[in-house]
Amino acid sequence: MAVEKFERALTEAFEKQVYGETPAELYEPIHYIMSLGGKRIRPLLTLMSAGLFRENWQNALPPAMAVEVFHNFTLMHDDIMDQAPLRRGKATVHTRWDTNRAILSGDVMLVAAYELLGRIEERYLKTALLRFNRTAAEVCEGQQLDMLFAEKQVVRKEDYLEMIRLKTSVLVGFAMELGGIAAGADPTTCRALYSIGENLGLGFQQTDDILDVYADPEVFGKQVGGDIIENKKTWLLLRAVEKSEGTAFEVELSGWLSAADMEAKVKGVRGIYDALDIRTEATALAEACFQRAEEELAALAVPRPEQKEYLQTLIHQIRTRKK
Amino acid sequence: MAVEKFERALTEAFEKQVYGETPAELYEPIHYIMSLGGKRIRPLLTLMSAGLFRENWQNALPPAMAVEVFHNFTLMHDDIMDQAPLRRGKATVHTRWDTNRAILSGDVMLVAAYELLGRIEERYLKTALLRFNRTAAEVCEGQQLDMLFAEKQVVRKEDYLEMIRLKTSVLVGFAMELGGIAAGADPTTCRALYSIGENLGLGFQQTDDILDVYADPEVFGKQVGGDIIENKKTWLLLRAVEKSEGTAFEVELSGWLSAADMEAKVKGVRGIYDALDIRTEATALAEACFQRAEEELAALAVPRPEQKEYLQTLIHQIRTRKK
Repeated sequence: MAVEKFERALTEAFEKQVYGETPAELYEPIHYIMSLGGKRIRPLLTLMSAGLFRENWQNALPPAMAVEVFHNFTLMHDDIMDQAPLRRGKATVHTRWDTNRAILSGDVMLVAAYELLGRIEERYLKTALLRFNRTAAEVCEGQQLDMLFAEKQVVRKEDYLEMIRLKTSVLVGFAMELGGIAAGADPTTCRALYSIGENLGLGFQQTDDILDVYADPEVFGKQVGGDIIENKKTWLLLRAVEKSEGTAFEVELSGWLSAADMEAKVKGVRGIYDALDIRTEATALAEACFQRAEEELAALAVPRPEQKEYLQTLIHQIRTRKK
Repeated sequence: MAVEKFERALTEAFEKQVYGETPAELYEPIHYIMSLGGKRIRPLLTLMSAGLFRENWQNALPPAMAVEVFHNFTLMHDDIMDQAPLRRGKATVHTRWDTNRAILSGDVMLVAAYELLGRIEERYLKTALLRFNRTAAEVCEGQQLDMLFAEKQVVRKEDYLEMIRLKTSVLVGFAMELGGIAAGADPTTCRALYSIGENLGLGFQQTDDILDVYADPEVFGKQVGGDIIENKKTWLLLRAVEKSEGTAFEVELSGWLSAADMEAKVKGVRGIYDALDIRTEATALAEACFQRAEEELAALAVPRPEQKEYLQTLIHQIRTRKK
């Protein structure tokens, strides 16, 4: 398949990557979390975006890896904060080792991301660093909002979307922008790449939230209904609360939110979503994001337009994914 | 006093520094830990080192601040890992708020350090970033070794010195080197600055360990004997274990290490140190480091040698400090 050459290049580069030697206790968790796999969408976006401007997209490998290492650093620390036992079906770092190990290995992983970023061509370093810093801070802001929202009684849908924009989309946007930066694209084009990625990221996260409720358990690879079980204030729940106000569903929904039988709760909340057409609305929202991303990509003037095909394929995969 | 102009410049710059706006919950702990004060030795070293090459040492303010912000980031995360309730007499971040806050605010603080570093003149950015990354990774390695040593039965004195070199000295070395980099000093001179700082950092930490046992409680500002209470394997303890082998002190020392009465334990271990002349040896070791730093500084060829005076004053202050 067409995108395989990018995937292969990344796999090889990550296999060769040495994060540090001693003490092994510090670096082992990095190799562990990086080996759990994942779809590596972000670095693929960086490489494919670079390919729109230069034949030699391989040049963008180190910055692409920086984005993926940074992403995995956030997972390592988020898993501590969320007390998550599992990540991609395996024990999280703080569970397999301990919290201190996950804090410190995460810290050195963030440094490793900067080290990889620093391998970008020197003339692009200042811009790349500036944008990386801003993005990294925004991802932290998103995680802080996520934790704050978990404690709040009332969250507005717009605030939820802003939270996922910060926590997820800005990094997807930056991944694409960085491909442009590393390949010498002009600032306006880089901003356009960012916007494509940002829309893609919003669609991605919205799809994630939908799959969390509706995925086929055989295919999904993690527990379906996790968000419902923990009363996660996703767009779906917030919209359901809104639409149920003053209807018979209002009491039913609030009853389910404090229910003890989790299996019944998942079914019950899903039933309300269905009755209120929440899935349709959420899907329309995600589709609108994907469509904007595709339109912006189609409209983008680049020196190697035939290379858009790879990005289009990847966006299509993200758009239609079942897990 | 002579060094005041540097201190004032730093104070003003830190007062003006904005780390981020929203969510306030994320940025509040940064302002809190940065306001706890501390001696700000590292950024002073950066500014003074820059002043050896250029009249306009103010140019080095953002990178100098990067070093101090990085240092405080390590304190925020180390305090979680060490479960420390107090820092400079005030509640640590994870105690005042919670662990999640300290993890995430620390993360964004590390990003803020890179942001400040990124404000160095562009032609020096690549070198500065490369060296900062290496230093930051080494500081994490030092903290990991520190935690590993706490669990080990036997630690060699050389390994302890290597641990404090990584955990403390490399950042002091880098602080001086960075002043040189920011002021356009050549690579050989930058390496010499690093070596001065590294020796100064070793002397600094060794003095810290001595003060922890012998400081005047009225002046020290924190609990004297803390290292003894927690059986911290400092050079002093390791040397005492070594020297007491096969003597009457061997049994006495090992008895104190498991004693329950902490006041008696501190007195008892200190008594053994005195009897074995440990303080004298430790002081000689620290003095040798300070002397190397001073000699290397004296021998350093710089365009503005009269500016060495500030560094000499600061080194003297560090050398003779009582707290």
